[in-house]
Amino acid sequence: MQYLEDFSPGMTFRSGTARIGADEIRRFAAEFDPQPFHLDDEAARATMFQGLAASGWHTAAVTMKLLVGSDFKPAAGIIGVGFDELRWPKPVRPGDELHVEGEILETRASRSNPRQGLIKLKTSTINQHGDAVQISVGNLVVPRRQ
Amino acid sequence: MQYLEDFSPGMTFRSGTARIGADEIRRFAAEFDPQPFHLDDEAARATMFQGLAASGWHTAAVTMKLLVGSDFKPAAGIIGVGFDELRWPKPVRPGDELHVEGEILETRASRSNPRQGLIKLKTSTINQHGDAVQISVGNLVVPRRQ
Repeated sequence: MQYLEDFSPGMTFRSGTARIGADEIRRFAAEFDPQPFHLDDEAARATMFQGLAASGWHTAAVTMKLLVGSDFKPAAGIIGVGFDELRWPKPVRPGDELHVEGEILETRASRSNPRQGLIKLKTSTINQHGDAVQISVGNLVVPRRQ
Repeated sequence: MQYLEDFSPGMTFRSGTARIGADEIRRFAAEFDPQPFHLDDEAARATMFQGLAASGWHTAAVTMKLLVGSDFKPAAGIIGVGFDELRWPKPVRPGDELHVEGEILETRASRSNPRQGLIKLKTSTINQHGDAVQISVGNLVVPRRQ
């Protein structure tokens, strides 16, 4: 269990890995992002993606799963209040194996709540070729030691 | 089918609505964001959320679904390259009915590809009480008329 005082800028961590299959890509897309390049490989070839690619929101959700399973364990859970940056530099393809690398960029006490602080976390979601498929910089609420 | 030339700053649109039930909240969380405040109402009462709340990534995914089903129809699909802003001002609760309000903030030609342009889109995801549960400002790739 980690509190604001346990984090400092420059700290890094690395998650386990998750494999994303074509069926999962299509299933997520059918429910939340039903566009041809996320649903059907043949249709996807004629699009900007040039083949089946996961929804960016699917990549974001898998990134969250990897974070929750990692050694990054703020005491109240991983609670994001917002992002300064979120982007998908490369598409996620069927069979990709992803892991997350995290880095604490900043920590600060909350101005409004003496029991809380904020940390700014950068996450890079990386595929088996070493390419980043998602970069985020987010702000998380974490409790202070009482 | 809409091209870069069909969009201009100040244009707005509104999606249909989607209801999020407790079962969906728990199912999404079990797969992608397995933390107590997204999984179990009793456990969630003792947390910062004070009751079951949807994962922010679930809210983002439902927002995407509402966008894809709306009258906002860029010719190549809704393809986000990144966000300037993404935040969740209020939690989504079981039974909430959400809709999305969109506004085009900027349009510009691509510097690198004469067939493409970029539009900056603000989306507000609003619940049945009129409260914003997600605000995003994202950049989308759209084709130009040839």
